[in-house]
Amino acid sequence: MNQPQKNTPKKPMTAITPTREDDFAGWYQAVIKSADLAENSPVRGSMIVKPYGWALWENMQKTFDPWLKDYGVQNTAFPLLIPVSFLAKEAQHVEGFAKECAVVTHHRLEADGKGGLIPSSKAELEEPFVVRPTSETIIGDAMSRWIQSYRDLPLQLNQWGSVMRWEMRTRLFLRTSEFFWHEGHCAFEDDAGATKDCLTILDMYEKFFRDYLAFDGYKGVKTAEERFPGADQTYAFESIMQDGKALQAATTHNLGTNFAKSCGIKYQNRDGKETFAHTTSWAFSTRTIGALIMIHGDDDGMIMPPRIAPTQVMIIPVMKDDTQTSTILDFCDSLTRQLKSKGFSVKTDNRDMRSSDKMWDAVKKGIPVRIEVGAREVEQGQVTCVRRDLGKESKKTLAVHEFVETLPQILDQIHDSLLSKSTALKTAYTQNLKTLEDVKSFYHAEGKGCVKVPVSLLQDTGLEAIKETYSLTARVMPFEDEGQTVLLAKAY
Amino acid sequence: MNQPQKNTPKKPMTAITPTREDDFAGWYQAVIKSADLAENSPVRGSMIVKPYGWALWENMQKTFDPWLKDYGVQNTAFPLLIPVSFLAKEAQHVEGFAKECAVVTHHRLEADGKGGLIPSSKAELEEPFVVRPTSETIIGDAMSRWIQSYRDLPLQLNQWGSVMRWEMRTRLFLRTSEFFWHEGHCAFEDDAGATKDCLTILDMYEKFFRDYLAFDGYKGVKTAEERFPGADQTYAFESIMQDGKALQAATTHNLGTNFAKSCGIKYQNRDGKETFAHTTSWAFSTRTIGALIMIHGDDDGMIMPPRIAPTQVMIIPVMKDDTQTSTILDFCDSLTRQLKSKGFSVKTDNRDMRSSDKMWDAVKKGIPVRIEVGAREVEQGQVTCVRRDLGKESKKTLAVHEFVETLPQILDQIHDSLLSKSTALKTAYTQNLKTLEDVKSFYHAEGKGCVKVPVSLLQDTGLEAIKETYSLTARVMPFEDEGQTVLLAKAY
Repeated sequence: MNQPQKNTPKKPMTAITPTREDDFAGWYQAVIKSADLAENSPVRGSMIVKPYGWALWENMQKTFDPWLKDYGVQNTAFPLLIPVSFLAKEAQHVEGFAKECAVVTHHRLEADGKGGLIPSSKAELEEPFVVRPTSETIIGDAMSRWIQSYRDLPLQLNQWGSVMRWEMRTRLFLRTSEFFWHEGHCAFEDDAGATKDCLTILDMYEKFFRDYLAFDGYKGVKTAEERFPGADQTYAFESIMQDGKALQAATTHNLGTNFAKSCGIKYQNRDGKETFAHTTSWAFSTRTIGALIMIHGDDDGMIMPPRIAPTQVMIIPVMKDDTQTSTILDFCDSLTRQLKSKGFSVKTDNRDMRSSDKMWDAVKKGIPVRIEVGAREVEQGQVTCVRRDLGKESKKTLAVHEFVETLPQILDQIHDSLLSKSTALKTAYTQNLKTLEDVKSFYHAEGKGCVKVPVSLLQDTGLEAIKETYSLTARVMPFEDEGQTVLLAKAY
Repeated sequence: MNQPQKNTPKKPMTAITPTREDDFAGWYQAVIKSADLAENSPVRGSMIVKPYGWALWENMQKTFDPWLKDYGVQNTAFPLLIPVSFLAKEAQHVEGFAKECAVVTHHRLEADGKGGLIPSSKAELEEPFVVRPTSETIIGDAMSRWIQSYRDLPLQLNQWGSVMRWEMRTRLFLRTSEFFWHEGHCAFEDDAGATKDCLTILDMYEKFFRDYLAFDGYKGVKTAEERFPGADQTYAFESIMQDGKALQAATTHNLGTNFAKSCGIKYQNRDGKETFAHTTSWAFSTRTIGALIMIHGDDDGMIMPPRIAPTQVMIIPVMKDDTQTSTILDFCDSLTRQLKSKGFSVKTDNRDMRSSDKMWDAVKKGIPVRIEVGAREVEQGQVTCVRRDLGKESKKTLAVHEFVETLPQILDQIHDSLLSKSTALKTAYTQNLKTLEDVKSFYHAEGKGCVKVPVSLLQDTGLEAIKETYSLTARVMPFEDEGQTVLLAKAY
């Protein structure tokens, strides 16, 4: 089978140890550390998103949020805590979510007499709260008060924030107890409105992932088994990582009237009759940063898609002796100002470090374009420019004005190239198979990647055993096959 | 004494009941409700910030955040939960904060057998967590790992999010268990760096409040008693509300080496010696929305300062009969597009409601400029324009092009007028008094507002009794008097 981006056996030193081929999970952690994106915190299961990682998330928010607003969504902020009784309202939802939550039981600490603090026994809450694992129930409760008439519909709400689901085995960005996301919650008059919303938002996600994060994937609908707890229908965008596993990058849920019934979201319809609203919810989270790493990264570290990169261009002054310092720095400053005025995100690395260390730092952080400026460049009004995705093979010297003029194309080329590689990865890692026997032999022979099989196999009693043996789940029924196939894969 | 903006006794109907004069606290709640800014939630003490209120907060973030970035601050995200042992590290801090917190003691719920859910006894945490009341301790812990050398300083971090301090008596925006804010946490080589940071950020707050929120106040330093728990010095911006009470709109804290010592934030200085860093923290929160209401609002509701208003211009189509509908709406659409293209925030209210209700809605929401467009306006290429702060007295008809051209000036005039009124309010509500006897007689005679007295009175043993009797606190020692005076006031 095809194994994209396979390491050549005699590859020289890489910036990241271990390499992807040697230990994909270890490589993933090392990329995050060397790019300074995030780290584990002293709060078990929770991460600290460091400035460079948070700048990436902010860029994602800044790009996506205006699209939601144009579509009619209004941002809002609901309480962090949810009364436990709210969770219990929707039967399937509680089954799926109530289990692993951070439970708030007290509202005061007191001295334990040994220099420490303990929850005060006099301050136990009558009803405990959970830190929100998701906000359907508390937003549903508000919707039941805010919606009276069909004139109040559609009601399209969204909030950016964090949620918490207690996790025992955590991995930065991919699975942490607290993670960051946006969560949309909308109410419509009927199923047509809710379905249209789910598909519209799913298209918006696809556009965002392809046009900004430069990754491809399968858009489709989840099987009944894999639906969000309490949803009638769940749609998803599933991407394929360089190790062949799938990652659910975003989901949209048609909740039917399930939450409307449990929360009491009723409205007077156009005929004056009291009717249950149809609700939806949808989200993507900081998991997409994990996807970015595992789709685009290489053995030298992170590769940032240029349209979302916190820094698009890193300028590295290369001083051989002190006499050059001020002219080189002036040149860098002037170039920085020029690029900034054209809307590029650019930095000069003027830290007190060796320039080779600065270059490797830019490489490991995945900064799309690196510029080196030494005495020769200043003298000739040139810059030496390297594309992160192509490495030193792409090194070339350009006149400053030429660089400034072509930078938009350079960034677009990087974007296009990353997206093509992601599409190639998806194709190479998808086997179209017909029978359960085929699936079995593929994975038995240590095949990597996912398999697309006829949807009828979902009814086959032999499927469960195969899923269990090879840790497969049904990811999605891709739209491209009009519901005739289902994608099975190991997944993050 | 002067009482600014006093209601005239025979004022006709107001949009808000009760009026400010009749019941300021009731008026405050009614303004929030009628402007649809926020509401109480089913989670005791926590609020729901509704779309219009959140849009205001987002505008505040969008304005202020780039200033922090220009100054060198990097945004980041630290865990929501803080181990209880962390809080206990800094003695004064625990004294000030540990008491009323949301305490997480379990990580799982289980069925109680009666259809409800309870914390699982098998899932009790070995060490409880609190939902962060503020993040000095957990950020200090990270700083102790991130900072090694003077080269790592200054380290300037900030996060936007929510925090939680359990409150028994809550009021929307002013005092809720969960509230939204930004919190900056920085480390410097020495006290000079930390002090400069506190003053720089305080100036930034002042600029933001004056130039965007259009309110004035006293910048100064807190008395020892009123410092943040664990700070060597606390600086604040205190504003005066229309009822004469003070509200602390923002604070900056010089934490000295207190947190550095308790968290172990040490660095190798320029002489190679291990040294404790000097840290600072600073914040403003959604309380400033409460201040906006109580400084600018009137008996018809909210008045939004134009540079921060979610909607600067509301266009109201006035249709007398159905034949006019489409030409009027076309006219409104075209005007909306024209204003949007110039960067104004503008909406057409095309809801299915009476136009008089739309006008009152725009009034109660405090939209700075209201435009009415009827058949006559369309015919003559004109708009009828009303300033919210001046009311119907300011109604005038302008040619469309004239309105579009002068809108920046109109908005600036509204801003300047609001700011002047706030300065007048501050002046009118500040009594310069010399002795404790003066203070006593002023409040005994039901004087409203705050008093500025010589700082030496802080040493007077009689002060405590007066503070208690009249619910006064020492707000700030204003910079304008170079530490010679202290401002005493009732405060929110």
